[in-house]
Amino acid sequence: MYKVIFKFEDGTGTEVFAALGENLLEVARKANVAIDAPCSGNAACGKCKVKLTGGELDSRQTRHITDEEYAQGWRLSCISRITADVEVLVPDIASAYRSRMKVADLDSAEELQIFEKTKADIADAGISFRNDLEVVPVLMEEPSLDNTMPDNERLVWAVEAACGVSEVKLQFSVLQKLAEVLRKSSFRVQCVVSRQGDRAEVLDVLPEDEKAQVCGLAVDIGTTTVSALIIDMTDGAILAKASSGNGQIRYGADVINRIIEQQKEGGRKKLQDAIISETLNPLIHAMCRSAGLRPQQIYRMCVAGNTTMNHLFAGVDADPVRMEPFIPTFFETDSICAQDLGIHIYPRARIIMAPNIGSYVGGDITAGTLASTIWNREEMSLFIDLGTNGELVFGNSEFMMSCACSAGPAFEGGDISCGMRATDGAIEACVIDSETMEPMFRIVGDEGQKPVGICGSGIIDIISELFRCGIISPKGKFIREGKRIRHDSYGMGSYVLAFKEDAASVKDIELTEVDIDNFIRAKGAIFSAIRVMLGSLDFDVSMIERVLVAGGIGSGINMRNAVNIGMFPDIELEKFTYIGNSSLSGAYMMLYSNEAEAKVADVAHNMTYLELSNEPGYMDEFVAACFLPHTDAALFPSLEMKFA
Amino acid sequence: MYKVIFKFEDGTGTEVFAALGENLLEVARKANVAIDAPCSGNAACGKCKVKLTGGELDSRQTRHITDEEYAQGWRLSCISRITADVEVLVPDIASAYRSRMKVADLDSAEELQIFEKTKADIADAGISFRNDLEVVPVLMEEPSLDNTMPDNERLVWAVEAACGVSEVKLQFSVLQKLAEVLRKSSFRVQCVVSRQGDRAEVLDVLPEDEKAQVCGLAVDIGTTTVSALIIDMTDGAILAKASSGNGQIRYGADVINRIIEQQKEGGRKKLQDAIISETLNPLIHAMCRSAGLRPQQIYRMCVAGNTTMNHLFAGVDADPVRMEPFIPTFFETDSICAQDLGIHIYPRARIIMAPNIGSYVGGDITAGTLASTIWNREEMSLFIDLGTNGELVFGNSEFMMSCACSAGPAFEGGDISCGMRATDGAIEACVIDSETMEPMFRIVGDEGQKPVGICGSGIIDIISELFRCGIISPKGKFIREGKRIRHDSYGMGSYVLAFKEDAASVKDIELTEVDIDNFIRAKGAIFSAIRVMLGSLDFDVSMIERVLVAGGIGSGINMRNAVNIGMFPDIELEKFTYIGNSSLSGAYMMLYSNEAEAKVADVAHNMTYLELSNEPGYMDEFVAACFLPHTDAALFPSLEMKFA
Repeated sequence: MYKVIFKFEDGTGTEVFAALGENLLEVARKANVAIDAPCSGNAACGKCKVKLTGGELDSRQTRHITDEEYAQGWRLSCISRITADVEVLVPDIASAYRSRMKVADLDSAEELQIFEKTKADIADAGISFRNDLEVVPVLMEEPSLDNTMPDNERLVWAVEAACGVSEVKLQFSVLQKLAEVLRKSSFRVQCVVSRQGDRAEVLDVLPEDEKAQVCGLAVDIGTTTVSALIIDMTDGAILAKASSGNGQIRYGADVINRIIEQQKEGGRKKLQDAIISETLNPLIHAMCRSAGLRPQQIYRMCVAGNTTMNHLFAGVDADPVRMEPFIPTFFETDSICAQDLGIHIYPRARIIMAPNIGSYVGGDITAGTLASTIWNREEMSLFIDLGTNGELVFGNSEFMMSCACSAGPAFEGGDISCGMRATDGAIEACVIDSETMEPMFRIVGDEGQKPVGICGSGIIDIISELFRCGIISPKGKFIREGKRIRHDSYGMGSYVLAFKEDAASVKDIELTEVDIDNFIRAKGAIFSAIRVMLGSLDFDVSMIERVLVAGGIGSGINMRNAVNIGMFPDIELEKFTYIGNSSLSGAYMMLYSNEAEAKVADVAHNMTYLELSNEPGYMDEFVAACFLPHTDAALFPSLEMKFA
Repeated sequence: MYKVIFKFEDGTGTEVFAALGENLLEVARKANVAIDAPCSGNAACGKCKVKLTGGELDSRQTRHITDEEYAQGWRLSCISRITADVEVLVPDIASAYRSRMKVADLDSAEELQIFEKTKADIADAGISFRNDLEVVPVLMEEPSLDNTMPDNERLVWAVEAACGVSEVKLQFSVLQKLAEVLRKSSFRVQCVVSRQGDRAEVLDVLPEDEKAQVCGLAVDIGTTTVSALIIDMTDGAILAKASSGNGQIRYGADVINRIIEQQKEGGRKKLQDAIISETLNPLIHAMCRSAGLRPQQIYRMCVAGNTTMNHLFAGVDADPVRMEPFIPTFFETDSICAQDLGIHIYPRARIIMAPNIGSYVGGDITAGTLASTIWNREEMSLFIDLGTNGELVFGNSEFMMSCACSAGPAFEGGDISCGMRATDGAIEACVIDSETMEPMFRIVGDEGQKPVGICGSGIIDIISELFRCGIISPKGKFIREGKRIRHDSYGMGSYVLAFKEDAASVKDIELTEVDIDNFIRAKGAIFSAIRVMLGSLDFDVSMIERVLVAGGIGSGINMRNAVNIGMFPDIELEKFTYIGNSSLSGAYMMLYSNEAEAKVADVAHNMTYLELSNEPGYMDEFVAACFLPHTDAALFPSLEMKFA
C-alpha cells in the first residue's frame, strides 16, 4: 500500500492508502475528495487536473496538458496510476461553485422583465395565482381547573371554528411547540394552515404578535446548474435567489455518466448527497441568511428537473431510465416530504415535483412548457430548452409533442476550456473584424469589467463570426493565420479573445478547436432533433409560427448568429423569443398557484413523447448537422444569400 | 478551572474542566456522564456514589456511606464540590440496565398464562383480533417499449385491482426501492398494505419469493422500567420480548424531577434521547437480533405510558403537566410517526399512543383498563396499577373513575437498598420464624439460584413477617435484637436476609429502616388513594367485588401479606387477582387489534378523573396510612383477630 496525500488550496488535506496501480481519480472518489471530472474519467474533458507536489505518479501527458503545465506537475487524475507514495494538490471545485453563488437566475433587469412577462402570460391564460397555504388568527379561551381540554384539542376546535372546516389535523412539529407557544401568547396565536375543502392541516403555530412568514422554495435542478428562489407564498414576491453548480458534476457531466455512478456500491447515496447536502442545503442557508428568513419558514418546495435529476434527488434508482424499455420509477409522485430527503426546510414540507413524461423529458420541460404558454395558443410553437440535455416541445392548444437530445453542457459554458455561465465577466456577445481578425465584445457586468470567460451566447457569436470571416472552415478547423490564432504542439488551433494581460484570468481567454467541436456537436444535436421531430409529424420548419428559447445560455443570445451557425432553423428572426430559465419560472408558478400545478399535470398527460433514437435517420441528420451551418446548405437560404 | 476525570468500569473515561465549587453531579451531567441519581441530587437516595481515585473532592460522609466505604473513597456526587483536580470512578449504570435486559416481562410461565387469560377475556368481551395491515400478492405485466407506464403507476393500478380499492398511496420508502424490487422479481411482488375502507396505503414491497414479515412493537414506558414486545401482526404471535431500565432514571426517579430536568436548557432533547436513543433503540436492536428480524419490518408501534412519559417520549414540553391548571399538550394524538422521533423501525410507522385522560392518569392506565376488562363487567371492580405512580380505576360497564398517587419506585425494587425487579435472583417470597427470627425465602430463577436482591413482592412479605414477629414496630422501626438485626453508626436498623457468603452479591442482602420507610410511604399512598376515591363516590371498600392488581411487583405477590401491611383493603382474598403488566398487555391488544384501539379511546372518553390533591382529607388519610397496617386498626378487622 502507498500513501496518497490530497492537499487543498485552503491548506487542509486528507491522507489515504492505495494499492499499486490504483487509479488516482477512483482513489479520490473513495476518499470523498472532490475532483472535477465531467467526462467521468474518460480523459476526454481534461478537467480532472491535479498538481503533483511530492512523490511519484504514473501519468502520461495529453493534449489537455501543455508542456509547461506538465513540467509544473499538472496531471490528469483519470489516467494517473499509483506507483509510489504521492502528494497532489487538488484545485478547489467547491470554491468555484461557491463563487458562482453570488449570481443567480433572475439577477438582471432583462431576466426579471422576461419573468414578469411570463407571469402575465400565465395569468392571461386564466390561471389564478392562489394556493392553499394561509395564515389564520386563532384565539382560544385560556384553560382553567374547570376547562381542562388538552392543548391540541383546544387548538383543533379553535381552528375548526376559525376556518369553518370539519376536520383539522396538526402536524407533529405543531404538537412539539404547542405548549410553549400557547402559554407565551396567552392562547392568542396565528396558524399556518393548508386548507383543502373541508379539511385543514396546521403546519405551524406562532404567537399572535410574531411576524408569520409563509415561504416556498422553487428549484430548477439542472444537470449542470441549480437555480433556486424563495418566495412569499401569500403574495408571490421573490425574497431570495441563488444559483450554484450541481455538486454531482464531479460524477459526470451528463445524465448517463451519473446514472452509471449511482449504480455502483453506495452510489445512490453519494449522488443524492451531492445534490442535497452539498448543493441545495448550502443554497437554502445562503438564501435564508441573505433574506433574514429561517429555513423552517419554507413550508413547501417545488422541484423541476429532468427525469434523471428527479430520481437522483429522491434517492431512487435511475438505472431503468437508461436501459430499454426506459421505464423510470415515477413520472409523478406525491409521496415525498422534505425530511425524507434531508432537505433543511420545514420537515414535513410537501415536495411538488414537476411531472416527467418520459425517460428523457422531465419536469424541467413540463414546468417550462407551462411557462412557455404554448398550450394556450393556436399558433404552432416550438419550445426549445437549451440545457445539458436539449429538449423540444412542438405544438399548440390542440396537441404537443416532445423529444430530447443529448447536447452536453456547452450551452452553459461547460466542456468549453474558457466557458462559464452568463454571469459577471462573461463575454456574452462578439463581433470580429474580417480584415484584422480583431474582436470586439460585450461583457456581462459593470462597466470596466474585464473578461473572465465565455458564456453560451458569446460562443455562438464567436463561432458565427469566425465562420463569417473565413477564419474557420465548415468543420470548425482554423484556416487563417494571425496574431490571435495559435496552434499547440498537437496542432490544435485556437482563437485568442483576450490575452491574459487584458483579462481577469490567469491565462489567455481563447476558443479552441476542441471547444468549437464540442459546441458544433451541441448545436447539431438541437438542429437535427428539430428536423426529425417536425418530420415525424410531416411538418416543415416553415410552418413554425413561434420559437421560444429557454435555458442558461443567457439573455444576450443573438438569434441571427444562432441561425448562422445552423443551430436554429432559418426562419424569420421575429419569430424567436428568449424566455429565460423556463424550468425555474415554471417551478415558481407551480409552487405559488395550485391551478398552475394542476395545469402542468394536465399538460404532462396530454404531451406525447418521441424517442429520437428510435427514429430512422436521426443519426444521419445529426452527422449532417455537425457542420457550419449544415452539409445541406439549401436548408439555410438566407445564409446562402448573405455569404454569396 | 480544575480538571475532572471520570473513569468508567470498562477502562474508558472522559475529561472535563470545572470551576471551583461546582457540584460534581452537575459537572457529570454536563459532560454526559451517566450517574444514577433517582432523587435528582437531593442526597436522599444515596445512589449517586462515585469513588475518589485521585486528587481531592469536598464531600462529607452521609448515612448512605459506611465508614468503610468512605475510607475506600466512596462519595455521593450530589453533595461533592470541586476544589482541586480530581479523578473519580463512575459505576456503570448502563451495564446495570443491560444486564436486566435478559429478563423481560412475560418471561415466566405464570406471566404468560396471565397474558393468555387477558387475551381470552378481551376476546370474550367481543373484541376481534384483526388489524388493517396485510400482505397482498401483486402481479404486474412487465413493461416494454409498448407498455411504458412508470413503475409507481403500474404498482398503483395492480394494488387497486388486487385489493379492490379505488385509492392507493405509496409510501416514500416504497418509491425508493421499487425499481430494484420489481426488476429482481420480474414484476411479481407482495405488498405490505394498510387497507382502510376504499383506500390502501402501500408500506412496503418485496419480491414474491421473499418471506414477508409484518411486525409490530408494543412498548410499556414505565417511569422506572421499559418493557417491549415485537409481535407478528398477522397472527399476534410474540416474536421477541425485552425489558430495560428507563434511561431517564439518572434525571430523577419520579415524573416531577424529570419534568424539572426537561425544563432546563436542552433538557427536552436530553430526556427524549434518554428514552429513545439510550433505551428504546437498543431494546429494539437486541430484540430484532434475537428474533432474526430487521427493524424495518416493524411497521407499527403502540406506546403505553403515563402522561409525562408520553410527552417526554414525543419531545413535547411536559411542564404544564405539573403546573396548575395541569393541562398537557395532548391526551390523544395521531400526528407522530417513527422517523419524527428517531425510532429505528420502519420510518413512517404509525405510532399509536394509548390516550391519556389527565395529567396523572395516562396511556398506561387506559391500556391497562382495557386489559382489566372492568369496562365489560357488571361487578364493581378496582384496578390498581402499582408503578412509580400508583393509579387506580374503579367502576364497571356503567362508569369508571380514575385517580393517581405518587408511590415512588419501591414496588419495582427502586429506592430500596437491595431492591431489584422480579427477575432471576430476586427474593420474591419470605417467611420469618417468630422465635429464631431466621428467614426462609423463595428466589426467582432455577434451583440453586443464590439471592441477588429483593423484589416488590418479597418486600411485602418481609415487612409483613417482620411486623407479625414483632421485630418492627407499626412505624417500621426495629424493636427486637438478634444476629440478623443490625444498627449502623447513625442508629439505623436493618434486617439481614442473607449474608454475603450465601448471596450472589458483594454485600449482605438486607432491608433497612430507610427501605421500610420508603415502602410504607408507597403502600400508604395506595391505600389512602383507594379510601379517598371510594369515599368521593360514597362507596365503601366492602362494596368492591373484584380487585385487579397490575404492575412490575411480580407474580409472586402474596395478597394476604399485602393486606397485612395495610396496602390493600381488608376484604376477601378471593377477590384479588394479579394481572401482570397490564400496560404492556393493553398496548399489545391496541397494536394487534383495531377494535381494541378504538375501545381504549372509548374507555378514555368515558373515564372521569379525580385529582386527589384537590380532595379534602387526602393528606390526613395518607399520613394515617403510613403505619403498619394503619393508625385506624378498625379498618383491618381480619388482622385484629389474627394478631389478637
